[in-house]
Amino acid sequence: MSRPLLQLALDHTDLAAAQRDVALLKDRVDIVEAGTILCLSEGLHAIRALRAQCPEKLIVADWKVADAGETLARQALDAGANWMTIICAAPLATIEKGHAVAAARGGEIQIELFGNWTFDDARDWYSAGVRQAIYHRGRDAQASGQQWGEVDLARMKALSDIGLALSVTGGITPADLPLFKEINVKAFIAGRALSSAADPQQVAEEFHARIRDIWRA
Amino acid sequence: MSRPLLQLALDHTDLAAAQRDVALLKDRVDIVEAGTILCLSEGLHAIRALRAQCPEKLIVADWKVADAGETLARQALDAGANWMTIICAAPLATIEKGHAVAAARGGEIQIELFGNWTFDDARDWYSAGVRQAIYHRGRDAQASGQQWGEVDLARMKALSDIGLALSVTGGITPADLPLFKEINVKAFIAGRALSSAADPQQVAEEFHARIRDIWRA
Repeated sequence: MSRPLLQLALDHTDLAAAQRDVALLKDRVDIVEAGTILCLSEGLHAIRALRAQCPEKLIVADWKVADAGETLARQALDAGANWMTIICAAPLATIEKGHAVAAARGGEIQIELFGNWTFDDARDWYSAGVRQAIYHRGRDAQASGQQWGEVDLARMKALSDIGLALSVTGGITPADLPLFKEINVKAFIAGRALSSAADPQQVAEEFHARIRDIWRA
Repeated sequence: MSRPLLQLALDHTDLAAAQRDVALLKDRVDIVEAGTILCLSEGLHAIRALRAQCPEKLIVADWKVADAGETLARQALDAGANWMTIICAAPLATIEKGHAVAAARGGEIQIELFGNWTFDDARDWYSAGVRQAIYHRGRDAQASGQQWGEVDLARMKALSDIGLALSVTGGITPADLPLFKEINVKAFIAGRALSSAADPQQVAEEFHARIRDIWRA
């Protein structure tokens, strides 16, 4: 397992505010995520602006695509994204088409896990060529008190064993990271844990320090 | 059951092209849908522009929201949408929050049915105050040959019986409409069936004529 990366999620409604956080944090994160809220507010312009601001970073278009995988993967990747998210509820045809378009451009698809999905689905995604999924405590689920627990961790381990690297998100702080040491973690995704911190750069450094402690080479 | 409405889906990547179709068809449809592709390409600007172009029409923001229901419902409705879609895979908290924000603005949430969902989920959505869902043949599923069949129609009837009015979409033509006569149909959604027709206005009239024939007052 390679060492987990740190992903900055931008869930702003306003591109200028997002770009202020990027300016502050881009040298301390590995991946910049154009979040769903930002993309629905600002359109492709947000992805183009982030690509211009961060020429060297991995950029994720967190679109949670449910249909039209081919068109949307083309739109996202041609605007500058490296990875695009597809929701687990999407038909397999959407995932296959999105994957083909992304792979042809050197990019990847991430399956966003929400609601009802099965390990058979996960094996289908793997067979379709997908190698990444995103495991959530959703913002609303989190606000209503849902915690990380044994059930989550067992499901994440099973997904790792199928061959999917997981990005993990939902109110994660550096103190949470040891929970995930048995999981094939692609990235830890932090939004407000970074951008709303008193010292965002210091929190980013704490994430990296904990990651280095837990995932020694 | 009230008579089904006709909804124009705008799945353009370009707002100007979408607005040309709207100019041609807005007097012959009941609902204008800002499709996912258009919204991810153009952002809220697309919804604002459609509201300006169609002050009197129902407008749907087809965002297929999976999280952050409160923020996104506020964004969509304040930009001019009447209805916003939430994907069935979203946590119930997202649906409840989206519904509360939409209802406070005189709007509604539509649950977009994709992938794995259950009738227990549908009863939960109804209990949360939701009265609409969207039943699909997805673009990719449709392209891979999936047809309307008895299973779809039985599921749609069961959803009607739970109390959800259904908007139906996925390559529907006027000739398909009799299939749905036992269903509580809120709207038939047509995109390319209208906009790619040789005579889009005539096809819209055919939809209305068939709807009047089948759903006599």
